[in-house]
Amino acid sequence: MIGATVEGDPDVIISSPAKIEEAGPGSITFLANPAYEHHLYNTRASAVLVSLDFTPREAISPTLLRVADVYGTVSNLLAVYQQDEAAQTRRAVSAHAAVEHTVQLGDNVRVGKFSVVEDGASIGKGTVILDQVYVGPNVSIGKNCVVYPGVRILRDCVVGDDCILHANVVIGGDGFGFAPDPETGRYNKVPQIGNVVIHDRVEIGASTTIDRATMGSTVIRSGVKLDNLIQVAHNVEIGENTVIAALAGIAGSAKIGKNCRIGGQVGIGGHCTLADGTQVQAQSGVINNITKPGAKLGGSPHMHYPDYLRSYAVFKHLPSVVAKLKKEIAELRSQIVK
Amino acid sequence: MIGATVEGDPDVIISSPAKIEEAGPGSITFLANPAYEHHLYNTRASAVLVSLDFTPREAISPTLLRVADVYGTVSNLLAVYQQDEAAQTRRAVSAHAAVEHTVQLGDNVRVGKFSVVEDGASIGKGTVILDQVYVGPNVSIGKNCVVYPGVRILRDCVVGDDCILHANVVIGGDGFGFAPDPETGRYNKVPQIGNVVIHDRVEIGASTTIDRATMGSTVIRSGVKLDNLIQVAHNVEIGENTVIAALAGIAGSAKIGKNCRIGGQVGIGGHCTLADGTQVQAQSGVINNITKPGAKLGGSPHMHYPDYLRSYAVFKHLPSVVAKLKKEIAELRSQIVK
Amino acid sequence: MIGATVEGDPDVIISSPAKIEEAGPGSITFLANPAYEHHLYNTRASAVLVSLDFTPREAISPTLLRVADVYGTVSNLLAVYQQDEAAQTRRAVSAHAAVEHTVQLGDNVRVGKFSVVEDGASIGKGTVILDQVYVGPNVSIGKNCVVYPGVRILRDCVVGDDCILHANVVIGGDGFGFAPDPETGRYNKVPQIGNVVIHDRVEIGASTTIDRATMGSTVIRSGVKLDNLIQVAHNVEIGENTVIAALAGIAGSAKIGKNCRIGGQVGIGGHCTLADGTQVQAQSGVINNITKPGAKLGGSPHMHYPDYLRSYAVFKHLPSVVAKLKKEIAELRSQIVK
Repeated sequence: MIGATVEGDPDVIISSPAKIEEAGPGSITFLANPAYEHHLYNTRASAVLVSLDFTPREAISPTLLRVADVYGTVSNLLAVYQQDEAAQTRRAVSAHAAVEHTVQLGDNVRVGKFSVVEDGASIGKGTVILDQVYVGPNVSIGKNCVVYPGVRILRDCVVGDDCILHANVVIGGDGFGFAPDPETGRYNKVPQIGNVVIHDRVEIGASTTIDRATMGSTVIRSGVKLDNLIQVAHNVEIGENTVIAALAGIAGSAKIGKNCRIGGQVGIGGHCTLADGTQVQAQSGVINNITKPGAKLGGSPHMHYPDYLRSYAVFKHLPSVVAKLKKEIAELRSQIVK
Repeated sequence: MIGATVEGDPDVIISSPAKIEEAGPGSITFLANPAYEHHLYNTRASAVLVSLDFTPREAISPTLLRVADVYGTVSNLLAVYQQDEAAQTRRAVSAHAAVEHTVQLGDNVRVGKFSVVEDGASIGKGTVILDQVYVGPNVSIGKNCVVYPGVRILRDCVVGDDCILHANVVIGGDGFGFAPDPETGRYNKVPQIGNVVIHDRVEIGASTTIDRATMGSTVIRSGVKLDNLIQVAHNVEIGENTVIAALAGIAGSAKIGKNCRIGGQVGIGGHCTLADGTQVQAQSGVINNITKPGAKLGGSPHMHYPDYLRSYAVFKHLPSVVAKLKKEIAELRSQIVK
Repeated sequence: MIGATVEGDPDVIISSPAKIEEAGPGSITFLANPAYEHHLYNTRASAVLVSLDFTPREAISPTLLRVADVYGTVSNLLAVYQQDEAAQTRRAVSAHAAVEHTVQLGDNVRVGKFSVVEDGASIGKGTVILDQVYVGPNVSIGKNCVVYPGVRILRDCVVGDDCILHANVVIGGDGFGFAPDPETGRYNKVPQIGNVVIHDRVEIGASTTIDRATMGSTVIRSGVKLDNLIQVAHNVEIGENTVIAALAGIAGSAKIGKNCRIGGQVGIGGHCTLADGTQVQAQSGVINNITKPGAKLGGSPHMHYPDYLRSYAVFKHLPSVVAKLKKEIAELRSQIVK
């Protein structure tokens, strides 16, 4: 099934996957990160996936299964054991849901309890809307999506095929746009008449919020993966297969390229454009355009990340660095005076 | 309608607003940020709003409409086109809502599906409570508010007039108060018996949380605008017309003045007082009182923001700055020895 | 009732607690933080709790009540006045709730309106599930918990006894796990088949998210207190009585010890282990293992916090520090030339 080379007992029986430090008899585990190698020599697992070129330093009791791509194989194995809410929702449209008559539902669409689907919305075949979800007027959701409890998709927003929206995600809240009144100091709301467009195979983590555009669309392109509690502001665009970690904030009208990797708690400034493949270290702040693809950024405001680490290495000892320079200058001065 | 000075074809017909880079024939767009000026010379828009003193560098095909306040005019135009969930909710109190008998509802109040309004609550005239909202016991909401799906307003909290609460906002969760037991290392909960009081014209972004006071009230004054995913802790007070960007955290008992501007991911320390007009740069941390109005702060811990940028400019080249100083000292030393 | 030593009128009548700056006749207040002492000499409170060794600098009109532990006494007093949603929910299982037939409910369990409890779930005696809550398939919740509106507890997760989950908390969203496909740049989802296990006396703030483990469990041990809007990633473990402030992010597989104190907006890197009693300053980033118990950390990347402050003190004046060194070197050079 996984195309592995077997070392050890080929008749061992496997019943479930487990972490290497918790695995017991009958379980299969894996070793990919060398930091966990010491667990290999104590594990009670019946089988362990390792890479083709792994050389153990000690004797090993479980059967070794060598594969080219350990993580990929684990992922495939886990899929066999997976049982999620979607699979456990047997009903079509719950009697406790409120689906308006003008809604278009594809084949095998399921809508959970206390969920609302408003006028003009359409939901593609095979999509599962779990309980307590809000699908606003004229929202369009594609095929084979899973929408977890408490998700809110507001008027006119569009979600593609094969997307996963985790619990309490908010799509299409108003952008944060206000025009100051210079006389009173008050802020007047700028109406937000755009929408959010999410392409295919996008996964969005719990409680992440994506605001609608002032005009036009906030756009999340195919294959983007967003972690939990991320803020995506109005008119942002995020390119294909870009991955963003939790608690990052993307300010208004920022344009992030393809295949970027944005760390946790990063801030991207308003109107900034990031080239494809940009990597931003956790907790950094990007404040202007990044034009060179593949740049690695760190610091707030951002700089080249390796340079940030070099500067920070000096910063760590800054009092003694400065004291030593002062002392050397003082010594020279005393020698000159002499 | 907008009092503009017209340059070009005065008979052009406009059907909708659009962004300058996406505008087509029949649309009106605007130019306010000079970074977008190059789009002006290629846009297919039929009309463009510009400021009174704007001087184009190239020939322009659309009709120019000169106004004193470009953003303000855009905002007014957008309002004409706006169609929000509130406008699309036609019902009064949904048959799918659960509104207790003791609740007081003003004229034209609408309550959406699967929303709950508990005993003793009151809702002022013209307010729209959308679907799946929780209005707890004894909550008071003023006139002409819009409360989006999934908002939770817990017991005893007060919301003024003309407020907008976006999806999944939580008002009145318990403050984070615990008394450590020195013997066991456990924390005992300090009951949180206060509430949250939100004044008029406040807008609160999706999934922002505002905790109730331990005693007394957490207070959000008139005209405050909070972005998404902000944490406002117990007993905080935020002054009139202060604006706070996403993912900021305001710790317990902090008092923020009027007309402040707080950037994204900023942290304000517990019990800190910020004078009116304080501006805090994104990702900074304020750790004590700011007494001078209008201060500009940056860094963590905070310092005067321009000073932060000057220090950071040296930090960026710190290894070479130190190396150069060392080299110069070494040269002097060798000259002295000679 | 509180074992206080009374100074002043022992017959004063108290009706409610209040903050010292807002207290009026009939109220009892307290002074614990010296920064608030000036309010003591103006307060209209009828009684004030102070510590045994407090010495007033001016005359005081209210009755003084001296106690060993001011905060602990306040906490006990507040509990007398507390009236929360749980206490105000009189029903057993609401007629508006959807509770599957296979669910096991202990004595006195209450389930609110539009809440869902799915197949195979169990809820221990005395637990209050408020309105619009989702309890997924096979979830287990212990005794005497309070689950606020909008909480989502997804399939197979476990909550212990005496826990409080605030509004819109999400327990058991999928961990953020993807295997990159090197050929296409796409990310394939790694199924997340583990769960979340929350032990006893845990309190979790509004809109905090805790992801399920890839395999095994994400574990929150007894007495942990999490503030609002915190991200806890898959396979994290948090030790007993650890306290974490708002907007912190704990990356995958991090192991945090007992009795740690983690500040707001802190980031803990993936796979990092923190020893018991570690203290992390707000907005810091921990990027590798902390093996010494009780360490105090600050900065991003982290360093010893007092060292961070010392380095930062030099950073604040870095341009003038460097300029002064350059000037001294230049002076020496001119003296040598002479």
